[in-house]
Amino acid sequence: MANPTAAMLVIGDEILSGRTRDSNMHFLAGALVKHGIKLAEVRIVPDDQERIVTALNALREGYDSVFTSGGIGPTHDDITADAVAAAFGVGIDVREDARAIMGAYCEKMGRELNESRLRMARIPEGAALIDNPISAAPGFSIGNVHVMAGVPAIFEAMVASVLPTLTGGTALMSQNLTIRRAEGDIAGDLRTLANEFPDLSIGSYPFVRDGIYGTNVVIRGTDGTQIDAAMARLCARFPEAVA
Amino acid sequence: MANPTAAMLVIGDEILSGRTRDSNMHFLAGALVKHGIKLAEVRIVPDDQERIVTALNALREGYDSVFTSGGIGPTHDDITADAVAAAFGVGIDVREDARAIMGAYCEKMGRELNESRLRMARIPEGAALIDNPISAAPGFSIGNVHVMAGVPAIFEAMVASVLPTLTGGTALMSQNLTIRRAEGDIAGDLRTLANEFPDLSIGSYPFVRDGIYGTNVVIRGTDGTQIDAAMARLCARFPEAVA
Repeated sequence: MANPTAAMLVIGDEILSGRTRDSNMHFLAGALVKHGIKLAEVRIVPDDQERIVTALNALREGYDSVFTSGGIGPTHDDITADAVAAAFGVGIDVREDARAIMGAYCEKMGRELNESRLRMARIPEGAALIDNPISAAPGFSIGNVHVMAGVPAIFEAMVASVLPTLTGGTALMSQNLTIRRAEGDIAGDLRTLANEFPDLSIGSYPFVRDGIYGTNVVIRGTDGTQIDAAMARLCARFPEAVA
Repeated sequence: MANPTAAMLVIGDEILSGRTRDSNMHFLAGALVKHGIKLAEVRIVPDDQERIVTALNALREGYDSVFTSGGIGPTHDDITADAVAAAFGVGIDVREDARAIMGAYCEKMGRELNESRLRMARIPEGAALIDNPISAAPGFSIGNVHVMAGVPAIFEAMVASVLPTLTGGTALMSQNLTIRRAEGDIAGDLRTLANEFPDLSIGSYPFVRDGIYGTNVVIRGTDGTQIDAAMARLCARFPEAVA
């Protein structure tokens, strides 16, 4: 059976303007691989409701699950929750359980639960809250969409609480071989190997180190026996290579 | 007049599997901002022709220009050039000028211009070559699409040669103010400011440092006088803040 698929929607002008370098995508990719879920597409869009709605509707129809990051804070440009409600065609309002979570946190921190902070308790109808162990303001899941904060520590904590609720697949395994030859010199052999092992993915990543041209070859798949066999074939062809 | 828009299409299983952390997006975002072009959307797709074609056709119709990265090397999974030709409905074959560039480089490096390397001289009909000062194998521009290598040093060199050929806009300027208050405490003031200056973008980025909650506020726009005025208003409201 094919592994479940996922997509990610990164929301935020600060990523597209180059101010902030996104790290959530790389984190999510690694976490999903371990859970046997294939990250199949990522889109990054600005803080614009129409663009968020369009992208979200395309992704949630195309993949088994969708993870969003960004745009659920207290400021005027945090419009993700409203956009998600619009995409699903449901209402959105302050919800009592979310308000209680925010209220308890504000009391603990000596902060006012003002109108801006109450925005973070606005939850689309029918959504389930995602716990935020860092700064309380919850994410939420609705349908196959998981809406999470953009701040990396919070995003990562939310992923950790959502992942166990999702059906995983066979974890993807990989083995690496470093061959001290230019990619163009070994590309023919890699093609032959890929044809022999159609269920495996054979990736190659060229590098130059101390003036030496080399290539890292990564063999990925869900069948460890096949990966071993392909790696043995490659090592026999390039006996000087280093695993 | 509104600034020109651009989109980026990142192509590569290695990004989606978490093996490689993309850096080209962040580089391109910064380069485009300086050139007055607004990066308006990014998509990341795997090495799959249908997925590349679908994404490329959506992006090239939606934005003034599109930059792709990845998938133009010598191996079997480098399918970007073929996918671009398919997206434009044109043929693709080894082109003599590209072959000559590859041939001269191979001769200089003492390498064989084998079948795999010749793949890198396959150029869609009607495209213009993009110079690769690092490893010779060219990128290409066709219509409003610029097809570039995924290796960061080569990607960056190709961006540098393509950008001067594009019509830029008014460069986006920004000013930063660090306010030692939690984002939820100043969100109301930021909303008021955003309403007063509808042509500016007011972004806020919360942080915790040495136990102090603070917010970096970034005011962006193309009109320096307006940015100065908005920043003066913000400084008057939060006199203890640091520019």
